[in-house]
Amino acid sequence: MERLRAAIRDIPDFPKPGILFKDITPLVKDPAALRLAVHHLLHPYIGRDITAVAGMEARGFIFGSLVAWELGVGFVPLRKPGKLPYDVQTISYDLEYGSAALEVHIDALNSGDRVLLIDDLLATGGTAKASCELVEALGAEIVGCAFVVELDELQGRKKLERYPVHSLLHY
Amino acid sequence: MERLRAAIRDIPDFPKPGILFKDITPLVKDPAALRLAVHHLLHPYIGRDITAVAGMEARGFIFGSLVAWELGVGFVPLRKPGKLPYDVQTISYDLEYGSAALEVHIDALNSGDRVLLIDDLLATGGTAKASCELVEALGAEIVGCAFVVELDELQGRKKLERYPVHSLLHY
Repeated sequence: MERLRAAIRDIPDFPKPGILFKDITPLVKDPAALRLAVHHLLHPYIGRDITAVAGMEARGFIFGSLVAWELGVGFVPLRKPGKLPYDVQTISYDLEYGSAALEVHIDALNSGDRVLLIDDLLATGGTAKASCELVEALGAEIVGCAFVVELDELQGRKKLERYPVHSLLHY
Repeated sequence: MERLRAAIRDIPDFPKPGILFKDITPLVKDPAALRLAVHHLLHPYIGRDITAVAGMEARGFIFGSLVAWELGVGFVPLRKPGKLPYDVQTISYDLEYGSAALEVHIDALNSGDRVLLIDDLLATGGTAKASCELVEALGAEIVGCAFVVELDELQGRKKLERYPVHSLLHY
């Protein structure tokens, strides 16, 4: 994983003072590192009968669509309110300050679907947990959640205790 | 292309009354249709020495990262202001009402880069033209712009007359 770790750039004080942001754009620009990341993300789910990959706007669209492609299944975008044009299921959730919401098209998944959730980063886990619940609200099952980066001290994994979590890099 | 056309859903009056929105989420959820779309998008650029694919937030991330993956090159995200954490080049451009801006990391591309720009939709061409100019501001060359859907009557292609434009479906 040192090859991957070297492709992630630390940005101090982004998006606000005191936060050390993990910038994945160098990884995405490096085709060998990207290939490594995508294959490590999907590896635990080969043979697990995944029927769809869901990913959160916007960086989750990059890794999520690539994992879906390699698994040979469809990709389901989870988006911020007002972005999806058809009928949606919505979930609201609390953030450290204020709240947020995510939407999915109501016909994007069904009760038989076995879903892998992909995002670039697991931080506090609020968005990931809401995403899992949104997928479940359509009757589908979350088989696992996979992240490129996990920020261990924020304990997002605790919020996701009902789900198997797989992260490539821990900080 | 009828297979692709059938995977795109018309949504009347989105995002505002009088607009017939082309919803690409059914296409992205259908792995066979997605494979067809991605391979048709990249086909004209095989052997053209593309060194990077650039895609606009957020749906451009899906098609752009897949085209980059299949071409074996890196993906460069073009994002709305404030989203990219490192030093950025910014371009502002006019919309029908008001204005918008896009950013790219200053080290994302260099003068030797031959870039393919990918997005899901060519409408008025304002965002696409700004994206091309943003890539050029870093010294890179736009080899082509490819879109899943082109709305012919909005004449976006005219705004992109300096660039080769390739669209899979015309409406």
